[in-house]
Amino acid sequence: MTEASWAVGVDLGGTKVEVGGVDARGRLLKRMRRPTEVKSGPAAIEAEIVDAVGEMEESMGSPPVGAGVGVAGQIEADTGAVRFAPNLDWHDVPFQADLSRALGLPVVVTNDVRAAAWGEWLHGAGRGCDDLVCVFVGTGIGGGIVSGGQMLSGCSNTAGELGHITVVLDGPLCHCGNRGCLEALASGWAIAQQAQEAVAAKPDGGAMLLKLADGQQKAITAEIVAQAAKDGDVLAQRLLDEALQALIAGAVSLVNAFNPCRLILGGGVIEGLPAWVDQVDRGVRQRALAAARAPLQVVSAALHGDAGVVGAAALSLRRATEGGRPVAQS
Amino acid sequence: MTEASWAVGVDLGGTKVEVGGVDARGRLLKRMRRPTEVKSGPAAIEAEIVDAVGEMEESMGSPPVGAGVGVAGQIEADTGAVRFAPNLDWHDVPFQADLSRALGLPVVVTNDVRAAAWGEWLHGAGRGCDDLVCVFVGTGIGGGIVSGGQMLSGCSNTAGELGHITVVLDGPLCHCGNRGCLEALASGWAIAQQAQEAVAAKPDGGAMLLKLADGQQKAITAEIVAQAAKDGDVLAQRLLDEALQALIAGAVSLVNAFNPCRLILGGGVIEGLPAWVDQVDRGVRQRALAAARAPLQVVSAALHGDAGVVGAAALSLRRATEGGRPVAQS
Repeated sequence: MTEASWAVGVDLGGTKVEVGGVDARGRLLKRMRRPTEVKSGPAAIEAEIVDAVGEMEESMGSPPVGAGVGVAGQIEADTGAVRFAPNLDWHDVPFQADLSRALGLPVVVTNDVRAAAWGEWLHGAGRGCDDLVCVFVGTGIGGGIVSGGQMLSGCSNTAGELGHITVVLDGPLCHCGNRGCLEALASGWAIAQQAQEAVAAKPDGGAMLLKLADGQQKAITAEIVAQAAKDGDVLAQRLLDEALQALIAGAVSLVNAFNPCRLILGGGVIEGLPAWVDQVDRGVRQRALAAARAPLQVVSAALHGDAGVVGAAALSLRRATEGGRPVAQS
Repeated sequence: MTEASWAVGVDLGGTKVEVGGVDARGRLLKRMRRPTEVKSGPAAIEAEIVDAVGEMEESMGSPPVGAGVGVAGQIEADTGAVRFAPNLDWHDVPFQADLSRALGLPVVVTNDVRAAAWGEWLHGAGRGCDDLVCVFVGTGIGGGIVSGGQMLSGCSNTAGELGHITVVLDGPLCHCGNRGCLEALASGWAIAQQAQEAVAAKPDGGAMLLKLADGQQKAITAEIVAQAAKDGDVLAQRLLDEALQALIAGAVSLVNAFNPCRLILGGGVIEGLPAWVDQVDRGVRQRALAAARAPLQVVSAALHGDAGVVGAAALSLRRATEGGRPVAQS
């Protein structure tokens, strides 16, 4: 490993593949984005990545030390096989082995949210911190936990499903089938759904929301709710406050259970509502245990949309530094 | 370290000091229990422990390799100083250093619930398991988390405050000042308080509870509620079911967030209501994420009242094996 060492980071979702070239300091030197052809299956996506890495290698002037891939799905810890990726419609795809063979490079496959947490930890808002919790509030809610300098992976590599902690016993139904999950109250989809239901129940109070959605109740999104709240709409402000209170309750749970030094908040909803970071900070300081909140900093994620690519590449570089030995915490 | 090596384990609470001699297999060979003279202060308790260790050493025929102490309070990770122990009325007592000097032995001081989690992990229901969560439901609720083979300690050594995860947003007031904590719904004190309030509100429905408490509403305890429920009392059954539902919600949160292989349930309330273990198991299987619940076992704690003493001693033995180097995860 030298200063010039770099790795490929891939963020593989249901609608796009992002490929980046990242150096040992976590700088994103190159990036490419291509739409994901879900229908074409793993081989076509693999070919896309191989192609992108070839181009990147040419422009970088040196080969990468390896590649890290974050996939929106469940990943087998030891093999990097994709057990299940609903947005890609993949079941038991040995993607780490296949891509490694195709690239002729060491490859590490991890979950996409975990990759973003690696990014924030190693090169973002968590730098230098051995105990942190990342919560990404986007369409859904997920996260990553670093404790004692280890990224937690859990028994079957699914640790960090922080959207599915219960904050309201018997609360609203979540996409996971349970009720009252943090995600069912504070995620982008939940805010949109609650707004749509409120507008359906009382169209008068929802006039501004409806107007911003061109009169289409089903087109009301969390972004529209945020916009309406900014413009002074009372219903939108109430909906966001309810979501914020749920997020604070979830944050308190995480702070009390894990005692992190830093709670990092990121994702699309937080980027659209940056004031939430201070409000969560204030809420946690009012409600968490004194001993747990004393050392705590609540901060915004630093890498924004790059966290997944940077984190996947950083994980690959980390493995290369460790001599390629398997690392349990991926 | 030989087969004959043993260590002292101490469980130091507000009402009693338990001192045990524990071998490398986690067997409790000797034990002594003395009432804690809180008023006499740390020096008197230290003298009691020194005295007990002397007696124990004599009857064991060999000196211990060290002593581990679990204290009901906040412990400084690096020094083993007791930052605050409300039941003992201790503030900033350098107990690890003082007791080590007095015994002429290496001493490690940790939190009492953390000590019990060490006991269950190394010698109880968690043996051989690298990813587990212990939840002790007694008068209060606390726990310990082992992830990737490490006992989590957190940023300021308070990780594992599992009684203070929120399960009901804006729910009943907790002793910690927050609302809707798991402890405020499912602990021994919460069950007793809810029963007392229910009886005050409707004395008719609470006839059996009142009778079992000799007519004294304030004397209704969780044990009495468990007894009344067993005898068919409808109010008691409803109160316990509400507490159980909260415990299930908390368990689901922990399973989704940490993805343990084993969830270990212990403490006085669980010992009085052993059927809860299967009911939590069933509830978690219905409500947790499929990928997180698949590898999970929900089991009863195995060491009962000995977990603290065995765990504290096991931690001491573990440090001795590691050559006395400081271990962050205490």
